[in-house]
Amino acid sequence: MRRVLKAAILGATGLVGIEYARILSQHPYIKPAYLAGKGSVGKPYGEITRWQTVGQIPKEIADMEVKPTDPKLMDDVDLIFSPLPAGAAGPVEEEFAKQGFPVISNSPDHRFDPDVPMMVPEINSHTVTLIDEQRKRRDWKGFIVTTPLCTAQGAAIPLAPIFMNFKMEGAFVTTIQSLSGAGYPGIPSLDIVDNILPLGDAYDAKTVKEVYRLLSETKRNVQEPHIKEVSLSATTHRIATIQGHYEVAYVTFKEETSAEKVKEAMEEFKGEPQDLKLPSAPDKPILLTNKDNRPQVYFDRWAGNPPGMSIVVGRISQVNKKTIRYVSLIHNTVRGAAGGGVLTAELLTEKGYLPK
Amino acid sequence: MRRVLKAAILGATGLVGIEYARILSQHPYIKPAYLAGKGSVGKPYGEITRWQTVGQIPKEIADMEVKPTDPKLMDDVDLIFSPLPAGAAGPVEEEFAKQGFPVISNSPDHRFDPDVPMMVPEINSHTVTLIDEQRKRRDWKGFIVTTPLCTAQGAAIPLAPIFMNFKMEGAFVTTIQSLSGAGYPGIPSLDIVDNILPLGDAYDAKTVKEVYRLLSETKRNVQEPHIKEVSLSATTHRIATIQGHYEVAYVTFKEETSAEKVKEAMEEFKGEPQDLKLPSAPDKPILLTNKDNRPQVYFDRWAGNPPGMSIVVGRISQVNKKTIRYVSLIHNTVRGAAGGGVLTAELLTEKGYLPK
Amino acid sequence: MRRVLKAAILGATGLVGIEYARILSQHPYIKPAYLAGKGSVGKPYGEITRWQTVGQIPKEIADMEVKPTDPKLMDDVDLIFSPLPAGAAGPVEEEFAKQGFPVISNSPDHRFDPDVPMMVPEINSHTVTLIDEQRKRRDWKGFIVTTPLCTAQGAAIPLAPIFMNFKMEGAFVTTIQSLSGAGYPGIPSLDIVDNILPLGDAYDAKTVKEVYRLLSETKRNVQEPHIKEVSLSATTHRIATIQGHYEVAYVTFKEETSAEKVKEAMEEFKGEPQDLKLPSAPDKPILLTNKDNRPQVYFDRWAGNPPGMSIVVGRISQVNKKTIRYVSLIHNTVRGAAGGGVLTAELLTEKGYLPK
Amino acid sequence: MRRVLKAAILGATGLVGIEYARILSQHPYIKPAYLAGKGSVGKPYGEITRWQTVGQIPKEIADMEVKPTDPKLMDDVDLIFSPLPAGAAGPVEEEFAKQGFPVISNSPDHRFDPDVPMMVPEINSHTVTLIDEQRKRRDWKGFIVTTPLCTAQGAAIPLAPIFMNFKMEGAFVTTIQSLSGAGYPGIPSLDIVDNILPLGDAYDAKTVKEVYRLLSETKRNVQEPHIKEVSLSATTHRIATIQGHYEVAYVTFKEETSAEKVKEAMEEFKGEPQDLKLPSAPDKPILLTNKDNRPQVYFDRWAGNPPGMSIVVGRISQVNKKTIRYVSLIHNTVRGAAGGGVLTAELLTEKGYLPK
Repeated sequence: MRRVLKAAILGATGLVGIEYARILSQHPYIKPAYLAGKGSVGKPYGEITRWQTVGQIPKEIADMEVKPTDPKLMDDVDLIFSPLPAGAAGPVEEEFAKQGFPVISNSPDHRFDPDVPMMVPEINSHTVTLIDEQRKRRDWKGFIVTTPLCTAQGAAIPLAPIFMNFKMEGAFVTTIQSLSGAGYPGIPSLDIVDNILPLGDAYDAKTVKEVYRLLSETKRNVQEPHIKEVSLSATTHRIATIQGHYEVAYVTFKEETSAEKVKEAMEEFKGEPQDLKLPSAPDKPILLTNKDNRPQVYFDRWAGNPPGMSIVVGRISQVNKKTIRYVSLIHNTVRGAAGGGVLTAELLTEKGYLPK
Repeated sequence: MRRVLKAAILGATGLVGIEYARILSQHPYIKPAYLAGKGSVGKPYGEITRWQTVGQIPKEIADMEVKPTDPKLMDDVDLIFSPLPAGAAGPVEEEFAKQGFPVISNSPDHRFDPDVPMMVPEINSHTVTLIDEQRKRRDWKGFIVTTPLCTAQGAAIPLAPIFMNFKMEGAFVTTIQSLSGAGYPGIPSLDIVDNILPLGDAYDAKTVKEVYRLLSETKRNVQEPHIKEVSLSATTHRIATIQGHYEVAYVTFKEETSAEKVKEAMEEFKGEPQDLKLPSAPDKPILLTNKDNRPQVYFDRWAGNPPGMSIVVGRISQVNKKTIRYVSLIHNTVRGAAGGGVLTAELLTEKGYLPK
Repeated sequence: MRRVLKAAILGATGLVGIEYARILSQHPYIKPAYLAGKGSVGKPYGEITRWQTVGQIPKEIADMEVKPTDPKLMDDVDLIFSPLPAGAAGPVEEEFAKQGFPVISNSPDHRFDPDVPMMVPEINSHTVTLIDEQRKRRDWKGFIVTTPLCTAQGAAIPLAPIFMNFKMEGAFVTTIQSLSGAGYPGIPSLDIVDNILPLGDAYDAKTVKEVYRLLSETKRNVQEPHIKEVSLSATTHRIATIQGHYEVAYVTFKEETSAEKVKEAMEEFKGEPQDLKLPSAPDKPILLTNKDNRPQVYFDRWAGNPPGMSIVVGRISQVNKKTIRYVSLIHNTVRGAAGGGVLTAELLTEKGYLPK
Repeated sequence: MRRVLKAAILGATGLVGIEYARILSQHPYIKPAYLAGKGSVGKPYGEITRWQTVGQIPKEIADMEVKPTDPKLMDDVDLIFSPLPAGAAGPVEEEFAKQGFPVISNSPDHRFDPDVPMMVPEINSHTVTLIDEQRKRRDWKGFIVTTPLCTAQGAAIPLAPIFMNFKMEGAFVTTIQSLSGAGYPGIPSLDIVDNILPLGDAYDAKTVKEVYRLLSETKRNVQEPHIKEVSLSATTHRIATIQGHYEVAYVTFKEETSAEKVKEAMEEFKGEPQDLKLPSAPDKPILLTNKDNRPQVYFDRWAGNPPGMSIVVGRISQVNKKTIRYVSLIHNTVRGAAGGGVLTAELLTEKGYLPK
């Protein structure tokens, strides 16, 4: 029988923390064993958690006590999921890694450390070997692996099969993102009732930066152009949706490229998680829809199996011979955060970085 | 002293109808003299109108009785504003034109009749002469002039100075539109709470078709490419905003083109309404903002003077040497409908198609 | 082994229809065997259904073909669930009953026929015997049983233990209801963004009328006052929530009555469904919360087991010696419609009105 | 000619601050002369202000520089409007009063000081004489006058004519309040999309406490019961509306009381501001509507003249011989805050507490 891994969830009462709790409460071999919080230490998790996700909070988790974020108290914990906010996450995660814990982080703080993987398992599972370098360089028993920004994942996953298979020239992405991406309390209500909130230059830029890296780490069938020659741009916004980042992409190519071929490439797209049949790997990372009014945030964000792990892509169409358009929808707190983190943990198990 | 024109507003209780009523109640020489409705004939306008716009309904208008849509009852009416819905508008507007009335229509039904102007006065005021042909061909004393779809105006007005001054290759527009664009009852509430509603292929296509025509009717400083060589695409959506269509545009060029120059072209953009100092002409049809979180629908839709007549453009930036990005915001029921209709009426007055 | 009942769902693509489909797809002995629709006959249910509820549409249901609303085609159907809209429902349901089908209706059309039960199984299960009279009087093999308006159920269920156990004088209820209560397309979006929509005198009145009847059919521990002496009032509204009717109640009494005692009565409230351990009967029809910011629509509407079958009541407090205040939340399309319908079917089975 | 008063607005960039700026920019004799802010000192007011109200920010105000909250810099300021938040307001306002400034505060910090008026000019203008006691007791040249909580004003203004003219026994109020009442950033967006946010015991209690005081300070035509015998309760909530607090009230009486008489009393209700024809006094503090789906937040919050200064009351109806029901709508940042503050300033001018 498979070894059960005991996981600690840092920031367990936050919006990504609850998705970790929900997913792990049903996981075949990773259990939510330690729920770490901040203002709520000592209280039953169910009492103080805003369970802003699908279903009711599972009884066994509701009764767990929230505990301090302290490695010393986590003797029997096997791995750490850290959806801590930017800034706060960095030093905490380093401390845990130093103390020997494997840390899977959804935070930006270590994403661009040169020896830290920024993982979307279907795209760049081979970067897992950065961990070896990381341990050597830092003399850590533990390690840090990160997952990218939800918005960047929403853009990069559909772009990956395009970049891998075609001579892509540019991609111009407009995002209409949900509130949960900013955490709680996050976006003030007065900014989003009867309004659209542009996220500004910094948010646009970090999205683009992460997509560049993810695409540069794909394994490609085509040889040129290199990612450096590709022009990427994102214009990012939030509106009053709770979960689900919706993105419209216009992609240009160096040569004639047919929407049909792009559709096929998306349909066939899969990666190591599918090959390894990881429990959280959806059959298809990208689900296609043919309806011209889909995907819709309310109806499609929980698509796939496990729910919320597939990105839904639709409206793939030929703009001109060298340009196609599509729209995509990612569940930002599942595929774009906690679900992606759990999938990464499963990959680490198969790759020998976590006990099996 | 200037002659006062008596206007009838068809569909006066609708969302564009109320903007006509509001604007005309303050107009220097066009008065709301006849409010035509359908289910509400005989009732005081103020009693049965959903005044879903700024301010309270003016007393003198509130007390007017809603009357039938019947040319025979409009002896002393000088012109007709027709924001009737698609399908219903066509035959009614023809009948009025046949009976000798000048009709300014916001409906799509006659927009692509070859002898009917589709007017954005800053862009294609010269097409007013189509009226002569129209009258001759149809043997009408009256005539029909249309205004374009609000979404198309929102796209075309910022694109006009670009197409006029640069060697544009393509424009890829993503719209996030407000509910009022669909009229009342319009969009069901269950489609937009916690959701984004894609408007589908037909809506995308009609937007593009109208933008093509508008751009093809600009007067240009550059000679090529012709509009037929330009690649346009629109991906259109509605969300839970009340007024204001927000649009993100990526524009590509045949040659290196600087965002700064594009900004200048937009800033300097003006047309015949500004030259003629028409009462509803804003000083600047395009207002620029430098803030990276603006325009915002709630805060900027009423920009300009008269309020809602200027389009706000921001976030103009260089994506690569041949691509720029910007976002725009148009007040869909003012500039994109009633305000544009009144501005057109003012132009017709100066051009001799309405009495002065 | 228990006999499996084959159910037809009329209006299966509507908002209550989908809850029936969802609930029955997991039911131990009632199966969704026939999905009747109107505009969508012949199409796969999954293709044309707006699945505006929790979870993804079950595969086996998604693939079923939508069929006509025709008793002749339903030879092997055992019972009919009819969430058809008011007006349309009446004659259709009569026809089915005449043809020998048991009909469980969520529509108002037959609610006040003197020989038709209006059933909340925890409150008035004994009224099931009206069916005998109904069959005799109408010479039908089938029959009609109705469930009350969701709003009335939301009011009546917490009031039932109060009226049963205390000398109630009046109840003044303010409702803040969700959009799904009005069906789809239902409420226009422009009525609810940045707004509260009062439902008006007629809606208030029908709510009160149904609550009167439900309370009059409770079995009471106290003898007076009779329901006719009780003063009821409802002020009803909708806002931009998707599911869940929230209600604030002020209840006055003839004598001193303690909030604590009322709380106990609610806590202990149960009925025949609990005694019979019906599969859709929640352990507690009323779940109490002690938090002063709960229930909340988003977080509590799916409370109970089965989810959405318990009403959540909170903020029970003493206003003065003879007045208490509480708030309640009912899942309007589950407990208030489809779930209540299924629970009624289960009761009918135990009572011999449906085969077991 | 009347003397012009120069006003400082503390917290001028906040939601109530902007209403002060808007109202005073059009005021006949009180001018916005000093705009005090905190994080934004030195910047042009128009640059950094979220103008979340009607109309565009007036040019002359937009260009003013935000200045420190420092009495020493306000030599030529005649009065202070202080919509500072609870806690922050108290000591600042005291300091200003000590330095000789008349302070009109919308903050709760001094509302229940026994020598500080809590003013709704139509209800308790006579309490202005508390200022004399305040100055004597505290040896201040300046003074503090407060306005009540917006929610309490929304409840108290319609209740005032009832309590003044009838033998009221109790009032049970359910509020559905807007987001602006909590300021900016205020309510997190994730608390209000698809949700209703109960404000809890403390908010309910402070509302009731203030209504008690306001009613106890009315001048009455009936002698009993005293306010202490009246039972008041409030159940308070916020939803996703921007401005406008909507309240449903059930009022009980000691004796038979007709809804018609209550309606008359509300219609005739006026106070000293109307007698003195103060510039910000609406003709009717209470506007009645007969439509059974009004008032509505979106359509009625700006009712009255000046806009937003009248409370709209509707749905007055007889529940039973001794109980009536009505609903009301108050513009919380105008009548309930800045507008009430300006009206108070006008009263103080006429009463000799401010120079005329």
